[in-house]
Amino acid sequence: MSLIHGVLAGDRRAVARSISLVEDRDPVAVDLVRSIFGCTGRAFVIGVTGPPGAGKSTLVDRLVSAIRADPEAAVAGRPPRVAIVAVDPSSPFSGGALLGDRLRLRSNGAIPGVFVRSMASRGQLGGLARATADAVLVLDAAGTDVIVVETVGVGQGEVDIVRAADATLLALVPEAGDEVQALKAGVMEIADLFVVNKADRDGADLFAAAVEGRLAVQSFPAGAWRPPVLKTVATTGEGVAELVREIWRFRAQAAPAGIARRRARSEQALRELMTERLLQELQAALPADERAALLERLAARDVDPYTVVDDLMLRVARQLQSR
Amino acid sequence: MSLIHGVLAGDRRAVARSISLVEDRDPVAVDLVRSIFGCTGRAFVIGVTGPPGAGKSTLVDRLVSAIRADPEAAVAGRPPRVAIVAVDPSSPFSGGALLGDRLRLRSNGAIPGVFVRSMASRGQLGGLARATADAVLVLDAAGTDVIVVETVGVGQGEVDIVRAADATLLALVPEAGDEVQALKAGVMEIADLFVVNKADRDGADLFAAAVEGRLAVQSFPAGAWRPPVLKTVATTGEGVAELVREIWRFRAQAAPAGIARRRARSEQALRELMTERLLQELQAALPADERAALLERLAARDVDPYTVVDDLMLRVARQLQSR
Repeated sequence: MSLIHGVLAGDRRAVARSISLVEDRDPVAVDLVRSIFGCTGRAFVIGVTGPPGAGKSTLVDRLVSAIRADPEAAVAGRPPRVAIVAVDPSSPFSGGALLGDRLRLRSNGAIPGVFVRSMASRGQLGGLARATADAVLVLDAAGTDVIVVETVGVGQGEVDIVRAADATLLALVPEAGDEVQALKAGVMEIADLFVVNKADRDGADLFAAAVEGRLAVQSFPAGAWRPPVLKTVATTGEGVAELVREIWRFRAQAAPAGIARRRARSEQALRELMTERLLQELQAALPADERAALLERLAARDVDPYTVVDDLMLRVARQLQSR
Repeated sequence: MSLIHGVLAGDRRAVARSISLVEDRDPVAVDLVRSIFGCTGRAFVIGVTGPPGAGKSTLVDRLVSAIRADPEAAVAGRPPRVAIVAVDPSSPFSGGALLGDRLRLRSNGAIPGVFVRSMASRGQLGGLARATADAVLVLDAAGTDVIVVETVGVGQGEVDIVRAADATLLALVPEAGDEVQALKAGVMEIADLFVVNKADRDGADLFAAAVEGRLAVQSFPAGAWRPPVLKTVATTGEGVAELVREIWRFRAQAAPAGIARRRARSEQALRELMTERLLQELQAALPADERAALLERLAARDVDPYTVVDDLMLRVARQLQSR
C-alpha cells in the first residue's frame, strides 16, 4: 500500500510516517500533501495555547476524552476520531526539553483511540508552523474528525501555530504575574474561548472576573461571537463538559467567520511556503565558495547588503526561469 | 544638511529620524543604509537578554553609566559615545506594553550623554531583527562607540535580535521556575556572559553555583572563551564594574571568534532581507482580485498550495527580470 493510500485509508502507521516526512521537510512530503490536499478540509481543528504551568496537557487530555464520549460529537453513530498534535516551537532557551518530558509522561497514560504526536522545531526559519499545518492536513485526509493542536507557551511561534486552528482556546491559571500580563494587549483577538484552569485555587473567581472585565471593555459587533470565560479543574475534569459544549456552540455560531479565518490561514501558509522555496533556490543559486566570498566583501564593507540582495534575487529569478 | 550627512556627522536628530525610517521600513531607509554602510563596523554591540523580571533595564542603565565612566573605554581621551536600543519583539500577547511602560520610567531618569531608543514590532514576519540591525548600523555610522541592545524577554524573537551582538549577556535572577528552565537547553551557546542580578537575594549564591555547574558540564576548546557567571545588584550598582571588566576581557580574547560571528550575522541579515523582498515582489505580482480568486480556489481544494507556490515563484521571477 502506498503512503498516500495508507493515509487516505486512515492507516496509523502511514499517518505517523507521513508526519515524520513533513517534519523532516522531505521532498516526498510535498508530493504527499499535493496528493491528499483535495481530501482535506473536513476536520475541526482546536488550538490550545497559554503560558507554561497552565495545565494545558492535562486539560487537552480531558478535553479529548470528553469529546470522544460526547454524543453530539459522534460521527455516523461512532465516536469521533481524535488526534492531538503537541507542538514545541522550542526557542533555543527551551530546546524542546519541556515538551519531551511532558510527552513521555503522557504516553504512559495514553488515551484509547486517540492519536498523539509531538512536533518540535528541527530547523531554522519558522518552518514549524508550516510543518504543523501539513501534519494537520495529513490527519485530516486520514479521516480524523477533531484535531487538537497544543503548544507549550505563548510566544510568537505559538501564536503562528494556533492561528491555523478553527477554534482557539487560551488556557490561563489564576496567578499574578505572567498570566495577567499575557492579557495585556492583543491576546483578546486570538482567543475564541478563555479557560481559567486550576479553578479550585484561591483567587480563581477573582481572576476569571478580571478576564471578564477586560472582555467587557471590548466591543463586539452584534451577532459576533463573544469569547466566554470558562473555569476548569483539569485534574478532576470539572468544567470540561461545559467547555466542550461551548466549543460546539462556537463552531455553530461562528461558521461564517470560520470561512474568513480559513482563507487567512491559507494565505499565511502560502507566504511561508514561498519563503521556504526562496531560501532553497538561493542555496542552489549561490555555491558555497561564492557565498563565502560575498560574506567577505560584506565584512570588508566593499558592498552593502541591499545591493547584494538585488543581485541574488535576479540570480534566483534566472534560475527559476531556466527550468 | 541631508539625512546621510547628518547621520555621519553624529547629529542626534538625524539619527533619531533615520531610525524611525528604518522602523517604518520606509524605502528611503534602504538608500540610507546603502549610503552609510561603508562607514559602519566600528561600534561594539552588547546584547542583553533574559527573562522578564531579571532587572535588565536597571542593569543596562548601570552598565552604560559604568562604561561611560571607565577610563579603559575612553576614545581619544573622551568618554565613549553610548546608545541603548530597547527592543520588544512584542508577541500579540505582550503587544509592546511592557516595554512602553519601562521606557516611560526610564526617560524620567535619562542618563546624560546616552542616546536611548525603543523599537517594537510594527508589522508581521519578523522584520524587527532586521530593523534593529539597521538601527545599529545607523548608530554605528553616527560614531557611537558602544551600542547596547536590550530585549524584553527570552523568546525566539529576542534570540534573533541579540544574535547580532558582538557580546551577548544573559541576565538571570535567583528564582526557581522560568529562570532554571531557561538554562535547560541551548541557552549556553548564546550567552558570552551570565549575570545573576538581584544577587542580594537569598539563594543567589546557590543559583549562581547551579549556573556554574551547568557550564562545568560543557567542554570548551583550549583557548576558547569560557562564559563567566557574574553577580550584580543593579539597583545599587554592585558588581557592575566587574561586569564591565569582563566584557572588555571578552572583547580582547574572543576577537577571532568575533569575526566569524559577524559573518554569520550578515548572512542571517541577507536571508531576512531576501524574504522581505520576495513578499514585496509577490504583492506587486499578484493583484488583489487575483489573490482573492486564488484563495477561493485553494479553499475549494481546486488546487494545492505547492502548485500555487510554483506558479507564484515563476511570476515573481518574470517580474524581477522584466525590470
